[in-house]
Amino acid sequence: MQRILVLLLLLVFMVGLLSFGHAAAGHGSEGGHASVYGVLFGLVIVLLAAKIGGELFETMHQPAVLGELIFGMVLGNLHLLGMTALDPFKSDEILTLFAEIGVILLLFEVGLESDLRALLAVGASATIVAVLGVLAPIGLGYAVSLWFLPESAWYVHLFVGATLAATSVGITARVLKDLQQMHTREARIILGAAVVDDVLGLIILAVVSGLITSIGSGASAEISLLPVLIIIGKALAFLAGAVFVGGWVAEKVLDIGAKSRVGGMAVVLSVCHCFSLAGLAELLGLAPIVGAFAAGLVLSEEHFKGFTKMQAHKFEEIVAPISSILVPVFFVLMGFKVDLQSFGDVSVLTFAAALSLAAILGKQICSLGVLEKGLNRLAIGVGMIPRGEVGLIFANIGAGLLVAGQPIFGTETFSAMVVMVMVTTLATPPLLKLLFSSKAGGKA
Amino acid sequence: MQRILVLLLLLVFMVGLLSFGHAAAGHGSEGGHASVYGVLFGLVIVLLAAKIGGELFETMHQPAVLGELIFGMVLGNLHLLGMTALDPFKSDEILTLFAEIGVILLLFEVGLESDLRALLAVGASATIVAVLGVLAPIGLGYAVSLWFLPESAWYVHLFVGATLAATSVGITARVLKDLQQMHTREARIILGAAVVDDVLGLIILAVVSGLITSIGSGASAEISLLPVLIIIGKALAFLAGAVFVGGWVAEKVLDIGAKSRVGGMAVVLSVCHCFSLAGLAELLGLAPIVGAFAAGLVLSEEHFKGFTKMQAHKFEEIVAPISSILVPVFFVLMGFKVDLQSFGDVSVLTFAAALSLAAILGKQICSLGVLEKGLNRLAIGVGMIPRGEVGLIFANIGAGLLVAGQPIFGTETFSAMVVMVMVTTLATPPLLKLLFSSKAGGKA
Repeated sequence: MQRILVLLLLLVFMVGLLSFGHAAAGHGSEGGHASVYGVLFGLVIVLLAAKIGGELFETMHQPAVLGELIFGMVLGNLHLLGMTALDPFKSDEILTLFAEIGVILLLFEVGLESDLRALLAVGASATIVAVLGVLAPIGLGYAVSLWFLPESAWYVHLFVGATLAATSVGITARVLKDLQQMHTREARIILGAAVVDDVLGLIILAVVSGLITSIGSGASAEISLLPVLIIIGKALAFLAGAVFVGGWVAEKVLDIGAKSRVGGMAVVLSVCHCFSLAGLAELLGLAPIVGAFAAGLVLSEEHFKGFTKMQAHKFEEIVAPISSILVPVFFVLMGFKVDLQSFGDVSVLTFAAALSLAAILGKQICSLGVLEKGLNRLAIGVGMIPRGEVGLIFANIGAGLLVAGQPIFGTETFSAMVVMVMVTTLATPPLLKLLFSSKAGGKA
Repeated sequence: MQRILVLLLLLVFMVGLLSFGHAAAGHGSEGGHASVYGVLFGLVIVLLAAKIGGELFETMHQPAVLGELIFGMVLGNLHLLGMTALDPFKSDEILTLFAEIGVILLLFEVGLESDLRALLAVGASATIVAVLGVLAPIGLGYAVSLWFLPESAWYVHLFVGATLAATSVGITARVLKDLQQMHTREARIILGAAVVDDVLGLIILAVVSGLITSIGSGASAEISLLPVLIIIGKALAFLAGAVFVGGWVAEKVLDIGAKSRVGGMAVVLSVCHCFSLAGLAELLGLAPIVGAFAAGLVLSEEHFKGFTKMQAHKFEEIVAPISSILVPVFFVLMGFKVDLQSFGDVSVLTFAAALSLAAILGKQICSLGVLEKGLNRLAIGVGMIPRGEVGLIFANIGAGLLVAGQPIFGTETFSAMVVMVMVTTLATPPLLKLLFSSKAGGKA
């Protein structure tokens, strides 16, 4: 039943698709002002693809985000079947911009959900787990990249390694919530470590991409300590400034907004706060998502108490309607960029397999950092496996970095990274279910 | 107190402004991927300007939309004071696109708020009032335009006249609600007529801009009946198709969405529905807002009963968080385009004054259409005066129409139209208050 309905949706979607193809050929509005239907239809197609994919995967008890990715991959490779109507999407500037704003809002929401005080109070275990869980995958990823891409420069290997460092809080949290295991010590260590991972990952991203950008603009490709220290300093200074100054400004402005007579203040001010810090981060040479995450981190429930007419039930959901439109654009476009033809090449497949293995093993090492005894270390290691959206964001930023006018890695490497993200994200839910349900069974 | 806080906000805004100016000069990100901070800061500045303007005007018991317009005018004319940092906004493609999507969402919301059945059941009075209230201002506007722009073609006068035809439901409804007069027969006739006006106005817009577009693409500028009939036919066929086919499809798809497991379905499907019809309208040579309005018209409370986890409290507010970000962009940018220097020219000022007079008098004629006796005809005529957003949308579309590669009217005419919209919108709330409170006083 559900399936038939979903297929019906698919049908509607295909009709839209065809009409779009028709439209693109027909040039609807002859004179006058610029036409917007291309943007409108593009968004509709991407959104429907995301929702159909998400629905299919949720029905199979898999994360919706995987469905969005896979539907994007299908749409992006329709040219293999002779359909080229959607190919312009890959380089569409407007959709790319929407996707970028989507990621910024996504990291803002991740920041909103991470409580700064809880983060600072997180146990020693979580911190050690996080640090090990970042260093081990970088090392393993570097080694794998060196093996498969012997002709690439050292910073490419470093970037590939860094992509393996991230942990996606979202997917693990979702599975643990579904299993009703959020209260266990294991779950708390996993989530605490995942949040620390987010911060560490963003700093590493800042450092690695900053290094590559400075190499790209003519600096020597030798490893030297000073630029690394400068970037780390910038990142830490920005985070500190965002937390203290940004937090203070946000509090004052939201106080004013709560007393305002005009509608939509909570949404507008939250978006302005997020966009301002994201833009500032970019101006400082950091990724905009670093600023967006910091913007979310400093806001908490209390800031929104004055907004009595606020639409959202929880303050974490203030920008939810906007992000539910823009975030899927990111994931579908990521899928779009995966070139299925590159998988005809065995070396790409083995590269992807080796990266996935490094990603999974790397996170198992981090369970050695658990100080408490009697805990299920394997469950903690497994809980850290999924790379999800964060891995994709890294891969996407990497694909945009240029040295001497050339991208630092090709579509094959990008495709292998996306496969690694998909494998780690797919593997986690069933493994976690297995590990936690056996334990829960013993307890009950 | 309130003022000081608003000024504080203003300060924050100016800091953002300056940092943006700084940024625009400094070229933050040297290599790699395209930078987004320009877009982010642009949105923040526009949104803050909109909210400060809205807040100031609400404090003075005036419609917030006027404040957004006037703050836009101030920002857009800062070059008169030697500040040119914001001038690129006027031709910024991304902001223009956001504004266009904002208007599409605004008309979608107007459609959501207008009940199709109530519209069809509206009394004879409302329909006659609406028709007179459309024809009289077009005639008067044509005459005024002919007087002031004797060298322009007949279709320019027709367009100027058509801009005077629209009635803005929003502003009158807001004032009547504030005065607790929504239950009176006068209020019901005003609102019914305003909705009919919306539909008539959109058809007239479709006809006039369709005519101009076909003239622009080489057709003869002679008045002939056939193309007019074709466009009217297209518009009516589209509206009928949107209501029946679009309504049926939307119902089916929303039924599926309500059973879905993935989040954000109500928002995503509503936006897809709105964008699909808006895009289709444009492909048919109509304005996208015609499609957006029709998309809103066919949706009602019942369609969203299945969405138990929906964030919005009322179905009319589903897209409110998105529109509260994008709609102000439209009004601020409209203000931006007003050239204050053109008011140094006395003829522009007198043109604006004559247009405003025609707009006000034209709507008084429509009160002759009230069939019932004993009603406050003056109040009905006054209630129809504000042109608000609809007048602006018309003016904006007109400014984008080209004939022989040239815009059909200059910035002077555009500025005069914006002044007309502001005068009619400013004049209505105090007049309505006067007319209704004297009557309510008599009743009480």
